[in-house]
Amino acid sequence: MTFRRLALIGIGLIGSSLARAARAQGLAEEIVCSTRREATRDTARSLGIVDHAYENPAEAAAGADLVLLCTPVGTYADLSAAIAPVLAPGAILSDVGSVKQAVVRDVGPNVPDGVHFIPGHPIAGTEHSGPESGFAELFQGRWCILTPPPAADPAAVARLRAFWEKVGSQVVEMDPAHHDKVLAITSHLPHLIAYTIVGTATDLEETLRSEVIKYSAGGFRDFTRIAASDPVMWRDIFLDNREAVLEMLGRFSEDLAYLQRAIRWGEGDKLHELFTRTRAIRRGIIEAKQA
Amino acid sequence: MTFRRLALIGIGLIGSSLARAARAQGLAEEIVCSTRREATRDTARSLGIVDHAYENPAEAAAGADLVLLCTPVGTYADLSAAIAPVLAPGAILSDVGSVKQAVVRDVGPNVPDGVHFIPGHPIAGTEHSGPESGFAELFQGRWCILTPPPAADPAAVARLRAFWEKVGSQVVEMDPAHHDKVLAITSHLPHLIAYTIVGTATDLEETLRSEVIKYSAGGFRDFTRIAASDPVMWRDIFLDNREAVLEMLGRFSEDLAYLQRAIRWGEGDKLHELFTRTRAIRRGIIEAKQA
Ligand SMILES: NC(=O)c1ccc[n+]([C@@H]2O[C@H](COP(=O)([O-])OP(=O)(O)OC[C@H]3O[C@@H](n4cnc5c(N)ncnc54)[C@H](OP(=O)(O)O)[C@@H]3O)[C@@H](O)[C@H]2O)c1
Ligand SMILES: NC(=O)c1ccc[n+]([C@@H]2O[C@H](COP(=O)([O-])OP(=O)(O)OC[C@H]3O[C@@H](n4cnc5c(N)ncnc54)[C@H](OP(=O)(O)O)[C@@H]3O)[C@@H](O)[C@H]2O)c1
Repeated sequence: MTFRRLALIGIGLIGSSLARAARAQGLAEEIVCSTRREATRDTARSLGIVDHAYENPAEAAAGADLVLLCTPVGTYADLSAAIAPVLAPGAILSDVGSVKQAVVRDVGPNVPDGVHFIPGHPIAGTEHSGPESGFAELFQGRWCILTPPPAADPAAVARLRAFWEKVGSQVVEMDPAHHDKVLAITSHLPHLIAYTIVGTATDLEETLRSEVIKYSAGGFRDFTRIAASDPVMWRDIFLDNREAVLEMLGRFSEDLAYLQRAIRWGEGDKLHELFTRTRAIRRGIIEAKQA
Repeated sequence: MTFRRLALIGIGLIGSSLARAARAQGLAEEIVCSTRREATRDTARSLGIVDHAYENPAEAAAGADLVLLCTPVGTYADLSAAIAPVLAPGAILSDVGSVKQAVVRDVGPNVPDGVHFIPGHPIAGTEHSGPESGFAELFQGRWCILTPPPAADPAAVARLRAFWEKVGSQVVEMDPAHHDKVLAITSHLPHLIAYTIVGTATDLEETLRSEVIKYSAGGFRDFTRIAASDPVMWRDIFLDNREAVLEMLGRFSEDLAYLQRAIRWGEGDKLHELFTRTRAIRRGIIEAKQA
């Protein structure tokens, strides 16, 4: 057993997948969670993925040697303040949030002395939410990024690393600012664009909109899948990674204007050149087994 | 047998899928193709999906009662001029091109009297190219849009309809301009955006680019799949559906600027409102079984 008591603060897609994977791999003697709504607690209990489901996050965190925040990042400030008094010295406090600088900013000041605060982010997910949508294999073959502060205890980092490796991930360490920059282009901007185009279609006249649904197999439907992700989670991500998202969005908009002009002026060579150049990245992703 | 001789002008993903499906359903006594390169002819022959593979499109079209153009739309003007002299009265000339007004413009003037010209477009595909990537089930459960001219012979339209229904599609008739407008939002704009964001990532500094590949599972990889489609096919589509694509792109850019502003000013309520509103379209697509 890697841990005695694992506390998951939040038990949605990510939290419940971790509960399942940790149970399957025998990574904790006891797995507990807290979650806001009674209905979610009932679901978590009836799925049998936790030993206890509490309303109060402090009750879940009490006595835990690994506490993982698994709620939208906008809730981290309050939740970490709520659990701080019960965190035991030597315990690891980590999270799964999709941004990292804001987590350091919001959680860092609440961490008691002697508690190891090591933020993390599994690069794995689906567009579904809630404990019923999780599965133990979610993290297999996927990366998990940890952003330990420079003074972090190496032994604590090693224990958290081992936990993620045992649920199937490859672990890499990174600076929070660099994490936020990389994720802005690999995840946040794609989601923003997907939400935008689906929004554009939503605003079309009624007849055209029903045809968009009917003939969505030409590419559009893939965007609707991405844009079906949880609204609160994504609102928080964009608010908390503003700078990096706006920077990447600026580059994207310039590039789009370039293609727009090429289409307007019938410059087929420019279109062909870009459409050819983009294939290299796809090949890289297939070779890296992330396709 | 619905047709005596089916001639596929071009035998890539779409042509070869039609050859396989038509053979499987017994829709033609003889299935032939023409294709530009010797290597593609060899592949088509060795796959056993056609009875003859010609270099000269006129040899394939000669004596055919159904001729389907299955090459990039930019080649249609020349190809239709090349086959026009051999098209038999009563034959149906159709196509699978992703735009329809340009096809009417480019092919229409070459169609001999007595030949039934009925443009078509199956809303089905993948990002792969060439005869080896086709499969007989590609069209199953997918829509096929026909854009017969107002004076089209109803019996010929009915025969072509039956052909598409037998390969598994639902057939709908539409005006070419309306087709181009619907496809601009359901297919052309999504591809343009996917190519753009993958291009934006391609231009990043070398170290960041390798990380984009590594951590692409957060959303980006889905865009790279779409942006792996054939460059020539897509160049032709954008050049041939300029007006409708630029119109939808204008709307998209406005909507993106609105979200950009909301992120910059921290207006979480606007983000949340849009992210919630877009879910209805996803539900529609799942209900329409096009997900
Ligand atoms: N989904 C992904 O693809 C993905 C990937 C990597 C990382 N992440 C990160 O993982 C975290 C959780 O995402 P998820 O997909 O697992 O979400 P989810 O399935 O929607 O579950 C969210 C959990 O957080 C709780 N919660 C929501 N709002 C809350 C609030 N205002 N106060 C207290 N608790 C609240 C929910 O409680 P109730 O159900 O009781 O309301 C539920 O337990 C997020 O920080 C996200 O950035 C997500
Ligand atoms: N792919 C999709 O998802 C999809 C979906 C719906 C409709 N469509 C439409 O279907 C058509 C074909 O697409 P596809 O995906 O089947 O393409 P593909 O797999 O790339 O095959 C293209 C075919 O066209 C031939 N060709 C290419 N350039 C040519 C040229 N300059 N002159 C003569 N022949 C040429 C190729 O011949 P060689 O191999 O001998 O060079 C090959 O036989 C396009 O009009 C496209 O708009 C595609």
